[in-house]
Amino acid sequence: MVGPMSRSDVVRAIGLTRSSVGGLVGDLTQHGFVREERAESDGSPGRPSPVVVPESEMNTVLAVEVLVDTVSVALIGLGGEVLDVSRRRRAVGDPSPQRTVGSVADMAAKMIARLDRRARLFQVGCAVTGLVRHDDNRVILAPNLGWADVPFSEMLAERLDLAVPVLVRNDGDMGALAEVRRGVAKGLDNVVYVSGEVGIGGGVVIDGQLMTGRVGFGGEIGHTIVNPDGRSCLCGAIGCWETEIGEDALIRRLVGVEVVDHVDRSAVLESARADAAAGDAAMLAAYAAHGRWVGLGLASLINVFNPDAIVLGGFLAPGFPFMSAAINAELDRRALATVREGTVVRASGLEAGAPLLGAGELAWDGVLADPVAAVEQRRTA
Amino acid sequence: MVGPMSRSDVVRAIGLTRSSVGGLVGDLTQHGFVREERAESDGSPGRPSPVVVPESEMNTVLAVEVLVDTVSVALIGLGGEVLDVSRRRRAVGDPSPQRTVGSVADMAAKMIARLDRRARLFQVGCAVTGLVRHDDNRVILAPNLGWADVPFSEMLAERLDLAVPVLVRNDGDMGALAEVRRGVAKGLDNVVYVSGEVGIGGGVVIDGQLMTGRVGFGGEIGHTIVNPDGRSCLCGAIGCWETEIGEDALIRRLVGVEVVDHVDRSAVLESARADAAAGDAAMLAAYAAHGRWVGLGLASLINVFNPDAIVLGGFLAPGFPFMSAAINAELDRRALATVREGTVVRASGLEAGAPLLGAGELAWDGVLADPVAAVEQRRTA
Repeated sequence: MVGPMSRSDVVRAIGLTRSSVGGLVGDLTQHGFVREERAESDGSPGRPSPVVVPESEMNTVLAVEVLVDTVSVALIGLGGEVLDVSRRRRAVGDPSPQRTVGSVADMAAKMIARLDRRARLFQVGCAVTGLVRHDDNRVILAPNLGWADVPFSEMLAERLDLAVPVLVRNDGDMGALAEVRRGVAKGLDNVVYVSGEVGIGGGVVIDGQLMTGRVGFGGEIGHTIVNPDGRSCLCGAIGCWETEIGEDALIRRLVGVEVVDHVDRSAVLESARADAAAGDAAMLAAYAAHGRWVGLGLASLINVFNPDAIVLGGFLAPGFPFMSAAINAELDRRALATVREGTVVRASGLEAGAPLLGAGELAWDGVLADPVAAVEQRRTA
Repeated sequence: MVGPMSRSDVVRAIGLTRSSVGGLVGDLTQHGFVREERAESDGSPGRPSPVVVPESEMNTVLAVEVLVDTVSVALIGLGGEVLDVSRRRRAVGDPSPQRTVGSVADMAAKMIARLDRRARLFQVGCAVTGLVRHDDNRVILAPNLGWADVPFSEMLAERLDLAVPVLVRNDGDMGALAEVRRGVAKGLDNVVYVSGEVGIGGGVVIDGQLMTGRVGFGGEIGHTIVNPDGRSCLCGAIGCWETEIGEDALIRRLVGVEVVDHVDRSAVLESARADAAAGDAAMLAAYAAHGRWVGLGLASLINVFNPDAIVLGGFLAPGFPFMSAAINAELDRRALATVREGTVVRASGLEAGAPLLGAGELAWDGVLADPVAAVEQRRTA
């Protein structure tokens, strides 16, 4: 959904008849999702059509993002407005599910306290950096968090005690959803999102739908083998793309050593980008070397998915300007020219974080599929 | 569609009401797609329900398969029955589009001459081993055939002169379609078909739908980089999966040299399989080495697609028994265990050839989407 529209605009935009739209707007007004306001006359003859305005601040969902270094929470109003957002760096060495749920609940409680007393919160959507089973919202495996078979949805629902559904999905999938809804891939049907967190994940949109696979594990593009004689990966395999383009690999190329503490890692990356922007040859060479491995993997993804766009997210986005030449050179060498022709490679530009915004989209999808039922469900909960 | 069914069975199978099914059966009978026959009494009380029998031999489509070594044509009757099939080895060194179209037309003419005079032929479906653009059915690139931008649909339509639509698709995509409709992946929703022709192609079914990508080029899994310092690929890249698991690589592993002539290649493969089956250690070792590279690529596909099944087709199918242990060992090492758990790896068992049967499915899909319109179209053509 978007901002205020007149009924006539709604009729044009969704192709239903004026009386159907009138009925729907009536329902949504009655249930408190929108209000109609008198429009300013635009000078054309006749009474101006009233404007339908989403009641953003009165209708909200909670979006949660659990990555390796950070935990984030946002309140997203109807129409996609980010009403409130909060991000915490994790304590080093304790990404336990209990601590994570505690942080989320704490941030959420503060936000909810700031909401209007009559505002409604319908659902919680979570993006977690791990393999998530869709039918029960469990995090089955999250190697970079050290989690295995965590009932994250249940734990968070109990702690939040809001009596609303808590959906959990993979962070890469939610990143892809955000990019096709409101990011640099907006409106495109076939999109690969490369999620650069500490490790590499991904999400794939095919013909406008998120690819989930059999149980929800689809899109683990970071764990494709690109270098069979390469480094060991946290997943247990050797030579995964993640071992060549993950954050560890980038930092190693930039400063020649491993850096464990994530505050230090952020500082290393920030200063490397500043140096690269100032023309530092060593930093530019390191980014180019990284870009070659990024490009090598993207070539395979282009040949497999024939996408409209590939979006680089997470830590790969701010480094993109220094890698794009190397990426393109590698695509020249390795992708089928005729397949590559129509594919654009872009850096994510979603400041609040693509997975967080995608989690909000996910939650709103559940509500908007049947808004009246969502209201009834809240009453009976 | 399947074989004879009573109206009651049809009602149960498709969930419509008895009167809707009656109306549909009436339409299909009137237009010559099915006939109703009196059933034998099954001993239960009351008049036996008449049996609806597809008029297979009176309603046909033409399926065409263009691979590197062979060109095949089949007449497929309503219900999927293969009424007639013919396969030719190509002349070495001349896979030109003109010669190919000539062969197809020649085989088709002989089959059509054997049909009942009143039989109808509705559509032509073609599976071609190359990149096919869906909107105009052109073969944009077929490196193993030496084709570039060939208007195969137009050429074949003109030569056949049947005044029916000629659809062209990628052979791997059609193989995947055949496997989920009538092969070892029948009824599964998420399937990767690995097409082992001379090169390696593929087709991917996601949530029951063929993945096509932006213009139809999706599924080129043979051109994913698995060995960045490996061999040059016909596509221009270095280290594609095709260079490690294509037919050339297998033959090199089996006999230590390149074999150009495709009759000789068939003979080499057949004798290697016989030797392997008899326990020849060198042949078994060669198949195991090949299987390791097959498994390495499959591990990536499992992590990316989280499929129900992977089906190995073409020359990979008969060699599968000698490779499966090595494939499994590699999946143990390289696939995410929790993702791999639910995925089965199988060899294609479709004797007529998965791409050929898939081309028939494609053609029938077009007809069955609106059978009455298909009849009208024939009348006005």
